[in-house]
Amino acid sequence: MKVLVTGGAGYVGSHAVRLLTKAGHDVWVFDNLANGYRAAVAPGRLLEGDLLDQQRLAQVFAERSYDAVMHFAALAYVGVSVTDPAVYYRNNVVGTLNLLDAMRAANVNRIVFSSTCATYGTPAKVPITEAEKQDPINPYGYTKLVIERTLDDYAHAYGLGFAALRYFNASGAAEDGTIGEDHQPETHLIPLVLQVALGQRPEITVFGDDYPTPDGTCIRDYIHVDDLATAHLAALERLQPGKGLKLNLGTGAGASVMEVINACRRETGHAIPHKVAPRRAGDPAELVADASLARKTLDWTPKYFGIEPIVNSAWRWHKSHPHGYNG
Amino acid sequence: MKVLVTGGAGYVGSHAVRLLTKAGHDVWVFDNLANGYRAAVAPGRLLEGDLLDQQRLAQVFAERSYDAVMHFAALAYVGVSVTDPAVYYRNNVVGTLNLLDAMRAANVNRIVFSSTCATYGTPAKVPITEAEKQDPINPYGYTKLVIERTLDDYAHAYGLGFAALRYFNASGAAEDGTIGEDHQPETHLIPLVLQVALGQRPEITVFGDDYPTPDGTCIRDYIHVDDLATAHLAALERLQPGKGLKLNLGTGAGASVMEVINACRRETGHAIPHKVAPRRAGDPAELVADASLARKTLDWTPKYFGIEPIVNSAWRWHKSHPHGYNG
Repeated sequence: MKVLVTGGAGYVGSHAVRLLTKAGHDVWVFDNLANGYRAAVAPGRLLEGDLLDQQRLAQVFAERSYDAVMHFAALAYVGVSVTDPAVYYRNNVVGTLNLLDAMRAANVNRIVFSSTCATYGTPAKVPITEAEKQDPINPYGYTKLVIERTLDDYAHAYGLGFAALRYFNASGAAEDGTIGEDHQPETHLIPLVLQVALGQRPEITVFGDDYPTPDGTCIRDYIHVDDLATAHLAALERLQPGKGLKLNLGTGAGASVMEVINACRRETGHAIPHKVAPRRAGDPAELVADASLARKTLDWTPKYFGIEPIVNSAWRWHKSHPHGYNG
Repeated sequence: MKVLVTGGAGYVGSHAVRLLTKAGHDVWVFDNLANGYRAAVAPGRLLEGDLLDQQRLAQVFAERSYDAVMHFAALAYVGVSVTDPAVYYRNNVVGTLNLLDAMRAANVNRIVFSSTCATYGTPAKVPITEAEKQDPINPYGYTKLVIERTLDDYAHAYGLGFAALRYFNASGAAEDGTIGEDHQPETHLIPLVLQVALGQRPEITVFGDDYPTPDGTCIRDYIHVDDLATAHLAALERLQPGKGLKLNLGTGAGASVMEVINACRRETGHAIPHKVAPRRAGDPAELVADASLARKTLDWTPKYFGIEPIVNSAWRWHKSHPHGYNG
């Protein structure tokens, strides 16, 4: 298949591009490089452009006949989405509408979309199934939910086939250590902890140790980025016109903040000092996926299970790229 | 106040413009005339333009310093929104984001927004309070709900003051019979029934007479367009930075389809033949507002109560304008 991957120079997108290419697909990356990196894309495969530029989008779809789109491009800083929601509505909602309309004009009717567990907001119970009420507590999660509903409406009206994959905590890096996580600024736990191990931060801050969890710190479901990639490929192969898949992608097991820190200590041999700060608003105690529907529907099983192998792969990337792609 | 009214050449917008002007405000209409009429706007007060044209919007806000915006411009055909949702997401969502962003750039931070009872979908109970779950069953209603949430997020982040007014069935016409309802195509009950009285249609179709209502036909809450206008003015005067009002606008009393037809028979003296057809998908038996919150919050009372005076005002308009504005 000829596949256009938006945000393919970013963290999850670049890993999916690698896998798709390995699986024999003809993969092209559309990225504005605002948060992605040229170095994460194979030479000659990057089509620079912005989803807000409708002319550029039309040009890209006119140049090649794509069979499908994987849509990773989005802004994903929860905190910024609260303080500057306009940028999130513009990029995540308008950008995706532009993409969908360019696809329709070019008769491309298959898409795999990066959704998120943030669409659930604060869930009534864990593990979270797809039947849980979606009630996002920040604009980031809401913009993703809007697109899920848009995809439903486009499937019904235009026969679009789609998958909306609700990631839990994307983490880890490619086994060969050549691509990995590099956010500016970094807000994700594992990279932050490993930056302490690299001597780039004095300590790691734990927000809240009085949650109703075994060690008092928040529990999240860390899913390896290569496992996300295999799920995307499996979803791509199962798209059907007019139908939508909405699936949680997680391992079904959680790790606490302290468990992550301890795994990083073991992996790196660094003491990794930590301090405890008050809870942050909007952090639920536990977010763990019931991913049984994805396992069944996609015939998919995460290869990385437990936090250790994830931290191991992340450390390989961070150790060899202490300053990320620009180092 | 200097007020920009988007969609001010349309049905509800034109009545609001009249009232605002009468109340001493300096009112300017922004309309693309796709569904509005030049004749509905006072000479010299129309600024032609489309919400999808960001340059034109910026120009309009640069030309005058507005104190507030009333935002009526939107597409509102439920059926078309199902078969062609892209046009609804584009016009209603992207158009409104463009408006909000142009307002921010021009430091205009007050807006009254036309929302709709369609944001509730099929309510669990009637009368419908603002606490009812909002779960739209068509893209039209959903695009309005997205904007309500966007306004919340903009209020929180940027200090926008807003009112989202959820109309039930807008109906009737200005008492002087000079402006009124003129949709192409017409889909609203009262104009359709009056077109039968005018000899323009052979009969009126009643969709379903086996609903669990006293006469078996659907019950709706008809609210006079001038009462909507007074509520908008009252809301405008109560906007507070960073705060949002979300209010139902209805009378709190319903009329059935047969009651509307009978009122039109009495008003026009025409027999108005009707035939019964099967129910339409997505038509709940009864949609009636609990509008007590609007009455209290806005110190507002609908002047038109019961279907007769509404039909009376509508008939004055349709009789004198049998082909609407283009007649």
